[in-house]
Amino acid sequence: MEVVQVLHMNGGVGETSYANNSFVQQKVITMTKPITEDAITKLYCNTYPEEIAIADLGCSSGPNTFFVVSELIKVVDSARRKISQKSPEYHVFLNDLPGNDFNTIFRSLSIFQNKLREQLGPGIGPCFFTGVPGSFYGRLFRKNSLHFVHSSYSLQWLSQVPQGLESNKGNIYMASTSPPNVLKAYYEQFQQDFSLFLKCRSEELVDGGRMVLTFLGRRNDDPSSKECCYIWELLAMALNDMVLEGVIEEEKLNSFNIPQYTPSPAEVKYEVEKEGSFSIDQLEVTEVNWNAYQNETDLSDAFKDGGYNVAKCMRAVAEPLLFSHFGEAIIDEVFRRYREIVADRMSKEKTEFVNVIVSLKKA
Amino acid sequence: MEVVQVLHMNGGVGETSYANNSFVQQKVITMTKPITEDAITKLYCNTYPEEIAIADLGCSSGPNTFFVVSELIKVVDSARRKISQKSPEYHVFLNDLPGNDFNTIFRSLSIFQNKLREQLGPGIGPCFFTGVPGSFYGRLFRKNSLHFVHSSYSLQWLSQVPQGLESNKGNIYMASTSPPNVLKAYYEQFQQDFSLFLKCRSEELVDGGRMVLTFLGRRNDDPSSKECCYIWELLAMALNDMVLEGVIEEEKLNSFNIPQYTPSPAEVKYEVEKEGSFSIDQLEVTEVNWNAYQNETDLSDAFKDGGYNVAKCMRAVAEPLLFSHFGEAIIDEVFRRYREIVADRMSKEKTEFVNVIVSLKKA
Repeated sequence: MEVVQVLHMNGGVGETSYANNSFVQQKVITMTKPITEDAITKLYCNTYPEEIAIADLGCSSGPNTFFVVSELIKVVDSARRKISQKSPEYHVFLNDLPGNDFNTIFRSLSIFQNKLREQLGPGIGPCFFTGVPGSFYGRLFRKNSLHFVHSSYSLQWLSQVPQGLESNKGNIYMASTSPPNVLKAYYEQFQQDFSLFLKCRSEELVDGGRMVLTFLGRRNDDPSSKECCYIWELLAMALNDMVLEGVIEEEKLNSFNIPQYTPSPAEVKYEVEKEGSFSIDQLEVTEVNWNAYQNETDLSDAFKDGGYNVAKCMRAVAEPLLFSHFGEAIIDEVFRRYREIVADRMSKEKTEFVNVIVSLKKA
Repeated sequence: MEVVQVLHMNGGVGETSYANNSFVQQKVITMTKPITEDAITKLYCNTYPEEIAIADLGCSSGPNTFFVVSELIKVVDSARRKISQKSPEYHVFLNDLPGNDFNTIFRSLSIFQNKLREQLGPGIGPCFFTGVPGSFYGRLFRKNSLHFVHSSYSLQWLSQVPQGLESNKGNIYMASTSPPNVLKAYYEQFQQDFSLFLKCRSEELVDGGRMVLTFLGRRNDDPSSKECCYIWELLAMALNDMVLEGVIEEEKLNSFNIPQYTPSPAEVKYEVEKEGSFSIDQLEVTEVNWNAYQNETDLSDAFKDGGYNVAKCMRAVAEPLLFSHFGEAIIDEVFRRYREIVADRMSKEKTEFVNVIVSLKKA
């Protein structure tokens, strides 16, 4: 778990997390809103429970932490008003790795709760918040205790760098030049991790409980396809340039790999069916531009610099990994080069992240 | 809740909390161990549940945070071994105000868990930890979800400074010179707070669930008796000296009061019976010396300085309150004087804290 732990320790790197705080992430949450709304409405309207226990896995610490939860509560509140039902109690479990900044979340709770009460009026039931530190590739909650699980842009992170990547020289992730055994090692780690995730959640969800999971993923069957690997290949380019100039040792680069897997919808479907605890209600794929600010108006010039935005976004994700493997000295230079490379590519081709969203019901 | 919130924000004052991290507190936990052991054993051996949900209210952040929980788990584990029962799952809810340093707790969890597994061997069931920010004078947990509630040296803190203390001039707490309406205001605030506490916990505990609560309290019927008020009277002396010297405004001192109530066993009993949800299994009173290090050997000279130890202990509690009312400038000087006064009194008389411990069962 070491690598992912470092990865999620946003506090330590002085940057917000790509996983949950970026503008990209907020766009993705907004894009998946119809699916999430549909799932929580079905859940609530099935039994009108007096309490709803919601878990957000990989909640991070920032503006998006409360964004999802507040959307979910608003949907339930609107549904219960339509039939003049008394509001349920909301029990919200915010999960991330133990290095996450839970203090900041907890200290902004009362502002969030007051705002929610203002928006929804006096009929809203009490909302209780709890912080749950730990890896979601293991049990976290009491058995049969959750009604709804949400996770956005976290499940593409593996529990560890796969074993057996020695032959992935010059690459830092799956790439078009990666040997087949590397692709296999990545896929097997994903299968093992996601299957364990499903098993743990099935123990924790009540019967009829639901999950909406969003992965950074791909459409293509080929796991080394450009749509999911290109953004890392450009980072590898920057690192390889620095190897050529003698700034980074070749051996050091060869032993560095990103613990991520960007699955296709078919791979997600296959694991869900194989594990057997959940039925798939919806499975969709969407895209979001690398530079999520692209079509926004009212932005300062800094935000219009796509290379800057994407490099900044990726730095928040990759810096802790690079830092622990290569040391601090190279970081600024890597990202200066990366920004240039990214800006160049963005000006010449269409660059998008692919999101795989799955809505599941405990069978 | 403002004052108590400030009070629990240990992080902000650069001192550990008196409430839960001091040597006094650890001594008290050890002294109350037979009562706690008895209660958790009865709970476990009543139904041998497959999971036990334990809440520690006012957990603070420091060495004592895990001390209580680990003792409780050890007792259950020993009981289940005697009858060759499979270990239950442990779900531990650590509660304190939102300003508490939960990050530090969460980041030391894995060390604690590994140590516990080492001590108890491979048969020990999984232990899940959760942080629950909020005041215990309100609901915190799901209905009928807890088996055992523990709270040590936190419940003497009131939810707020009582209203109507204008006539408590020159005092900062109940004192022998406090007018009757001041004593009444303090007592009524205690009644209101503790009764609400009992009501909330009775909703959250399962039938047959248990609580062990330790208050800083008193034996005497008189709420302004020396045994509970003296330590604050000595602090008031230091402050009054500074008023005389013109360092502190008299009006400022007159409007300062500590939001605490140190109940007698009879008062605790009365509230429990009036509220009606719990039966009393045990109710005891113990004492611990102001200088808890007094009878320890192997201590450096610094620890042998009773005035220093007690003033340091009290500073951790009182500094946030004094800071927010009087400002930073006077703090060092107040505690320099306080240390001298305390050392003088300790050399001349027997000085003890009184603890009231109550073991309750949800009727």
